[in-house]
Amino acid sequence: MLAVTSSVVSGNNTYVVGVDFGTLSGRAVVVRVQDGSVVGSAAHPYPHGVMEAELSAGPAATAGRATPLPPDWALQVPGDYVEVLAHAVPAALAAAREEHGVRAEDVVGIATDFTACTMVPTTSDGTPLSELPGLEDRPHAYVKLWKHHAAQPHADRINALAHERGEPWIARYGGLISSEWEFAKGLELLEDDPEVYAATERWVEAADWIVWQLCGTYVRNACTAGYKGIRQDGRYPDRDFLAALHPGFADFVAEKLDQPIGELGAAAGRLTARAAAWTGLPEGITVAVGNVDAHVTAPAAGAVGPGQMVAIMGTSTCHVMNGESLREVPGMCGVVEGGIVPGLWGYEAGQSGVGDIFGWFVEHGVPPAYHEEAARQGVSVHELLTDLASRQRVGEHGLVALDWHSGNRSVLVDHELSGLVVGQTLATRPEDTYRALLEATAFGTRVIVEAFEEAGVPVTEFIVAGGLLQNRLLMQIYADVTRLPLSTIATDQGPALGSALHAAVAAGAYPDIRAAASAMGRVDRAVYTPDEESASAYDALFAEYRALHDHFGRGGTEVMHRLRGLRRAARSGSGSAA
Amino acid sequence: MLAVTSSVVSGNNTYVVGVDFGTLSGRAVVVRVQDGSVVGSAAHPYPHGVMEAELSAGPAATAGRATPLPPDWALQVPGDYVEVLAHAVPAALAAAREEHGVRAEDVVGIATDFTACTMVPTTSDGTPLSELPGLEDRPHAYVKLWKHHAAQPHADRINALAHERGEPWIARYGGLISSEWEFAKGLELLEDDPEVYAATERWVEAADWIVWQLCGTYVRNACTAGYKGIRQDGRYPDRDFLAALHPGFADFVAEKLDQPIGELGAAAGRLTARAAAWTGLPEGITVAVGNVDAHVTAPAAGAVGPGQMVAIMGTSTCHVMNGESLREVPGMCGVVEGGIVPGLWGYEAGQSGVGDIFGWFVEHGVPPAYHEEAARQGVSVHELLTDLASRQRVGEHGLVALDWHSGNRSVLVDHELSGLVVGQTLATRPEDTYRALLEATAFGTRVIVEAFEEAGVPVTEFIVAGGLLQNRLLMQIYADVTRLPLSTIATDQGPALGSALHAAVAAGAYPDIRAAASAMGRVDRAVYTPDEESASAYDALFAEYRALHDHFGRGGTEVMHRLRGLRRAARSGSGSAA
Repeated sequence: MLAVTSSVVSGNNTYVVGVDFGTLSGRAVVVRVQDGSVVGSAAHPYPHGVMEAELSAGPAATAGRATPLPPDWALQVPGDYVEVLAHAVPAALAAAREEHGVRAEDVVGIATDFTACTMVPTTSDGTPLSELPGLEDRPHAYVKLWKHHAAQPHADRINALAHERGEPWIARYGGLISSEWEFAKGLELLEDDPEVYAATERWVEAADWIVWQLCGTYVRNACTAGYKGIRQDGRYPDRDFLAALHPGFADFVAEKLDQPIGELGAAAGRLTARAAAWTGLPEGITVAVGNVDAHVTAPAAGAVGPGQMVAIMGTSTCHVMNGESLREVPGMCGVVEGGIVPGLWGYEAGQSGVGDIFGWFVEHGVPPAYHEEAARQGVSVHELLTDLASRQRVGEHGLVALDWHSGNRSVLVDHELSGLVVGQTLATRPEDTYRALLEATAFGTRVIVEAFEEAGVPVTEFIVAGGLLQNRLLMQIYADVTRLPLSTIATDQGPALGSALHAAVAAGAYPDIRAAASAMGRVDRAVYTPDEESASAYDALFAEYRALHDHFGRGGTEVMHRLRGLRRAARSGSGSAA
Repeated sequence: MLAVTSSVVSGNNTYVVGVDFGTLSGRAVVVRVQDGSVVGSAAHPYPHGVMEAELSAGPAATAGRATPLPPDWALQVPGDYVEVLAHAVPAALAAAREEHGVRAEDVVGIATDFTACTMVPTTSDGTPLSELPGLEDRPHAYVKLWKHHAAQPHADRINALAHERGEPWIARYGGLISSEWEFAKGLELLEDDPEVYAATERWVEAADWIVWQLCGTYVRNACTAGYKGIRQDGRYPDRDFLAALHPGFADFVAEKLDQPIGELGAAAGRLTARAAAWTGLPEGITVAVGNVDAHVTAPAAGAVGPGQMVAIMGTSTCHVMNGESLREVPGMCGVVEGGIVPGLWGYEAGQSGVGDIFGWFVEHGVPPAYHEEAARQGVSVHELLTDLASRQRVGEHGLVALDWHSGNRSVLVDHELSGLVVGQTLATRPEDTYRALLEATAFGTRVIVEAFEEAGVPVTEFIVAGGLLQNRLLMQIYADVTRLPLSTIATDQGPALGSALHAAVAAGAYPDIRAAASAMGRVDRAVYTPDEESASAYDALFAEYRALHDHFGRGGTEVMHRLRGLRRAARSGSGSAA
């Protein structure tokens, strides 16, 4: 914990700013400390967005000679994040002033949350390598966004070695480190561009880099250090382990990664004059320790106690939940002490594909008549299909699907799995398959919930944040399938509000996150409750899902892996894939 | 064999008429005996089509009080068939006269083929019960079309009892009698409407009923008697067996079914004055023994020798093939001595869903952009998808599907199976799934071919008739998957030409069907041959299909049956289906 003294603040006229850095844009909110009211908000897109096909930044790109990027790459530009500070924060402040008379001097703190694991290679003073002359056209000098997946071979080696050596930390991650995380991306950098690796004096989570820009101090937040940085019980993987991966990797932790840890909700420092100029906020106000979009949403949804599972449901779903003790849950993404709220064990799990599966189906599997009917009714195709599907009784479509179109993150942790639909007949209509896909994601959630419960981490409430909570049918299905009371976050600014809440704690307005969540969190409790008849019918369908899940995902058949292999062979032009 | 003497005819100016009675219409062709040239053709739709939702014939229907029909029913009106004789035959003759100068008196014979098993309940003189006063509003008095499937429970009982008693004939049908066939529909009639059953003096295949109308003589053709009527080695199921099904069923064969058998290609009689008046054909010309649409197509495609498998590929596929000896092929639909050509064993197999699966996908699973692009190119959506799919290498889509959307006829004989697709990802596009469905039906064919070969009935050539032969990609896939040379019928009038060919034999123009097929059959040999690279890649995909086939179809999991059960329970409103 850093020793930054916060001035105690409170009262009706005190405000904080939260900034949520997403995949394509950043969003700032101004929030009243007393009750969590959002009084102003503004968003700003990253000028370079996500660079996947080519490096569209740097002198070469400006000269029309952009470097192409390999498959599975995803880069960003650090300056784009600063633009959010310089545009979205002032705009949110202006809105708060105009609509609520809030003055900049009423703001006592700022906090941020970020996508993760998103890594910035920097010098020792935090300057991104991509801003150094001579490195501006070098892809590896740029930010590697969370969804940069080119480090899969490196992750595979880390996992194999960890199991071979019986490393104790691997069980904290359900047995598998992700290619998205700090060590896999670090090893990729070393092996693919040793020069840039050598120039990397600090390998920084973007979540911490932005805080560094705000307060001038590099504090490593406990959340990403634990979930993405393999920091467990105060230690990282040791030098021997790293050396066994690659001799040049032996000092990775000591030289580039290790840094004092800041607990969530603590102050990292005070707003610098430079950052005050960007944002229009008063110099010297409290800057909170960095955080992650999913994790910061939990207190925003009032979920700070054990057993309250928060699901941030969008294109994919991230589950975060506090538990009172350490348990090893098979296939979880991670468990970190103080990873969500200091003093509790923070558990994380996830589903790789949820809303994007529904979106894929609507875009690629629904015939013209449905699009025309939706237009006639003035609704989206999603809404039309949901309406039609909601008229069915459980099981009426005769289908069961596996929701693995993007692989399975929890509990199987296998990106090479794929989708499956059983039961289609000539009478199957789009609303049938759509509903089966909705249900499949709910079954996937139930598998996760049951894995937690079987491991001794009980789940007592299911709280949904994210865009999919708009779909009432989907929510009811989740309540019925999980047999849990389903609450919904009562703001559409979940992560930004969660950051603001952390700013309030860091600024001393509340003694801890629990107290802040109670006052500032927004949740509608038990909006959906299980319907016994449906829940009972779903038990039968879930049994089918579970059997298919185990058959296709746990070695009953390797057909999905072999189909991937056949696809790769065919696409590489190696012809016959036998 | 009936003792009808045929006048020997031949020569350039001799013609025959073939009439193909399909599901929705009948088609007549006038064909030159010498070379099989079609010189005139005409079709006529059945005025009542297929009655599935309600009985749209009879006084009550005329008065606006049509009787609703239960699920799985499919009825027809016998008079509609006579309309085909009275409209399509004269129109085909008129076309032949106008275009080729053919005179009615140049026609020496007529033959017909029909859907099967399609049953007409009649009096002893062949009058359909539905034409008797008092029975005109009685659904059971009407023709039960092949796809009337309400006798499934009756078929189930017949099968169970046959296995229980070790009846020798059950193995001739792959171990299962279909609900479509004579005994299942007969038992249904007895139990569901005993009065109509009692009034049924003859239970007549429509294939024979139409011949009866043409020549005034009831001759039971060897094909339907064997394949649909369980006539094996000259015998039917015995009285004890029938009595065990239902005491009132004991004399079903003796009283209502048994009748002299006519071999295929034999004459049944001579055209009556009444039929001559309907058709415009000369009274007294030869009328051939009845036949079935699929079986009559084999000689039309030149397939009269052992090992030449003819696949009539449309919404579903029917496979017919001659073999030199009797073998019990698991899951075949039937084997009948002289069932296709006298003197050989005729084997039949089938795939319940082929073109209708492709049609279902195009209608219900393809988004607007594809329909728009097809319209822009002036092609059908089928053609667009085929074009896109044809650019892929084998295995490139990463998918494998089971083609059981309408159940599986051979070799599993299970109508409760359903479709399955494995391997979909967010990158899956409609052409991928479309190609996977095409391939799935080819894999289904390979399973059948292998079942024949493993049972000692070798398949040496694959000959395709039916609308799907237009799809060149599909044909190449079939050649690659089966590793057989693929020939295609060279007429779009396959069944009607096949009937005409039988008329020529019955009229004495050829000594037998083999000789007639040689002169009149139309086939392009080995239009498609296996590509070794693709065939080898397909071996790998087929191994996946076969594994899924056995897992889902042979007891690895009963999920498909349970999903049907859940669907039925949900639809019947019994709620929770656990």
